[in-house]
Amino acid sequence: MALFVLKFGGTSVADVDHVKKAAEKVAGELRLGHKVAVTVSAMAGVTNQLVDYCRSIAKIYDPAEYDVVASSGEQITSGLMALALQQLGHRARSFQGWQVPVMTSNAHEKARVERIDTQKLHACLEEGIIPVVPGFQGVTQDGRVTTLGRGGSDTSAVALAAALKAGRCDIYTDVDGVYTSDPRLVHRARKIPRITCEEMLELASLGAKVLQTRSVELAMKYSLPVQVLSSFEDAAGSTLPGTLLVSEDAMMEKQQVTGLAHSRDEAKITLAGVPDQPGVSAAVFGPLAEANINVDMIVQSGSEDGKRTDITFTVPRADLARAQEVLNGRKDQLRYRSVLASADVAKVSVVGVGMRSHAGVAQTMFKVLADKGINIQVISTSEIKISVLIEEAYTELALRSLHAAYGLDRGS
Amino acid sequence: MALFVLKFGGTSVADVDHVKKAAEKVAGELRLGHKVAVTVSAMAGVTNQLVDYCRSIAKIYDPAEYDVVASSGEQITSGLMALALQQLGHRARSFQGWQVPVMTSNAHEKARVERIDTQKLHACLEEGIIPVVPGFQGVTQDGRVTTLGRGGSDTSAVALAAALKAGRCDIYTDVDGVYTSDPRLVHRARKIPRITCEEMLELASLGAKVLQTRSVELAMKYSLPVQVLSSFEDAAGSTLPGTLLVSEDAMMEKQQVTGLAHSRDEAKITLAGVPDQPGVSAAVFGPLAEANINVDMIVQSGSEDGKRTDITFTVPRADLARAQEVLNGRKDQLRYRSVLASADVAKVSVVGVGMRSHAGVAQTMFKVLADKGINIQVISTSEIKISVLIEEAYTELALRSLHAAYGLDRGS
Repeated sequence: MALFVLKFGGTSVADVDHVKKAAEKVAGELRLGHKVAVTVSAMAGVTNQLVDYCRSIAKIYDPAEYDVVASSGEQITSGLMALALQQLGHRARSFQGWQVPVMTSNAHEKARVERIDTQKLHACLEEGIIPVVPGFQGVTQDGRVTTLGRGGSDTSAVALAAALKAGRCDIYTDVDGVYTSDPRLVHRARKIPRITCEEMLELASLGAKVLQTRSVELAMKYSLPVQVLSSFEDAAGSTLPGTLLVSEDAMMEKQQVTGLAHSRDEAKITLAGVPDQPGVSAAVFGPLAEANINVDMIVQSGSEDGKRTDITFTVPRADLARAQEVLNGRKDQLRYRSVLASADVAKVSVVGVGMRSHAGVAQTMFKVLADKGINIQVISTSEIKISVLIEEAYTELALRSLHAAYGLDRGS
Repeated sequence: MALFVLKFGGTSVADVDHVKKAAEKVAGELRLGHKVAVTVSAMAGVTNQLVDYCRSIAKIYDPAEYDVVASSGEQITSGLMALALQQLGHRARSFQGWQVPVMTSNAHEKARVERIDTQKLHACLEEGIIPVVPGFQGVTQDGRVTTLGRGGSDTSAVALAAALKAGRCDIYTDVDGVYTSDPRLVHRARKIPRITCEEMLELASLGAKVLQTRSVELAMKYSLPVQVLSSFEDAAGSTLPGTLLVSEDAMMEKQQVTGLAHSRDEAKITLAGVPDQPGVSAAVFGPLAEANINVDMIVQSGSEDGKRTDITFTVPRADLARAQEVLNGRKDQLRYRSVLASADVAKVSVVGVGMRSHAGVAQTMFKVLADKGINIQVISTSEIKISVLIEEAYTELALRSLHAAYGLDRGS
């Protein structure tokens, strides 16, 4: 008899009727003979409201008290879920983070799960009682309430599944899976039935907001299969097939390219005519890091005359003005000729674990973009990803062309 | 340096702005050099919403899970209050019922406080940190969350004050004190500056809804001064003087009559021509008790011929039809001649600890009512209370006449 953890996100428990529907999904797993533990988020909108309360009292608030306030959203849903399961004739009870306990670090507002004591939960499961554990919350060694940061309920669910040695963690969300590209831009995008954690991480960090990054890291660490499913059903009332996150070993055939990601949140800065000498990078990027500006893609072009070079890099578009300020303030020290900035760029990435063993993925990318007359401004690569910076206006064209070229199109 | 417990009810923490104002009242006590612990209710409307959630999932719900849901309202306010106090430059932290702990019985939804561990709270106070304890909630020996029943936050506050050996418990509420009579009916009603717990209990059980009855009983048990104050301020921003609840010993001069209460929730039933023999009262009132109908005033009139008697009593108006059904169903057994029922009655009561030592209170009442042509249908008395049942239409006339006769009128 397999044990599954079912996690319901905010839209899946948006109101009392949704809580009842989610309880029916749990009942469905029980009918199949599985044991089930449940994790729930706060009802949609509740956490935002609670955060607003805190912020309207204090701009800079005590994160320990914020956690007391914010964690109550999940507390409410956990009680309601237990009631809904009981109403369907099942035995169920809620366990708050401090009752389990879900031990976390002391970093209020962004605590990390350190240990989950599963004794009470296993005792419950043995007796046929469904434990309902609110996501997002935990407790410190000192007995103070913590929260795991926004989206932390995914992490709670995966951590709980790992601690319980569950066979799978099902995450019900308003996204029904991971797609080969953004379906709003690439109409032939397909849902990916199976994806590796590594690919998911690359896609997530590139803007595919399906699961919290830390939950994916945890799933990878514990080789725990995680399934992303839609909270919403098809016309016949069945749950739609989602995307299953698996470890790389579990992938029978590795796709060369699993999916495409893109981001329009980038801006490009070029420092032209910087002295080409040791320490120049540190001099440029140190002050930006101090100003909490994340620098992403970096290229240093060949030196003109062996004395001066150009450094190009990307920063979040929202930080562009601030980054320019920082650099302008250091003109004397950096001795560059000029700063060129452009917000008119987009990053397009090709992701796939198959790249490791297949050559030619990059070549295909460059050729497809060249054929469409799209200029590549910056390139960066990782083991399973190639990203290029292009002019923003070409984003859709680039995505669609690459999607077809890598054989990702629906029906291809 | 005196220690006070300040409790803020739902209207005093109705929204974030009210929470801030309540925090300023706490700060005011600190400026006077006092130590303060704070208890808070849920924000106005929150508990009702949470209860509605539970009820819309299950008509008959698991009270243990109900408690998990319902207690979160006070949890939210406690965190916000701590933040608001911090924002005013004070050190403060919230302690949930399980963190204190506030140990209660296992009777979920209506638990009783059994013991409050004050060690952590005293340690806090020693360090100059204001502890904020949510009202209404506690924890069982097994570590499950409980609530004390509606209005239970008053009880939490008084129990906390008793456990901390506080010098006083201030209860901020939307009523600004206890009045000599209902100001809506008796325009010359005055606020009572000091009242004994016994009087408060009599007035409360007669419909003056200022404090939860159990909180008054606790205050009496521990001889704890409790002050009822308005959450709302006068035009100059000062807290209005409220009513101080004290033990009888602390009353310098005992008023003969402290106040008048009235209730229109009564109905009268007369069983005419009942056999005048032992066991007849048990035969009448046993079945009503079984049907959960509270019988209040009872009189048995003199026997007509030594063989038959009339029994008159009052029941809650809402239970009148049900009481008649019960009695009709037992006609054969009770052998009465007829059942007479009337909902057209009101109970008017005179309350005062001074009655114990002053004669003439009853005589004054009967004379005043007779002078106004008001017929007394039933009389019942306790040590500090005389209640009469009269025709409902005369309620205001009776209250105003008695109010003047006992010297309670404003300015008299």
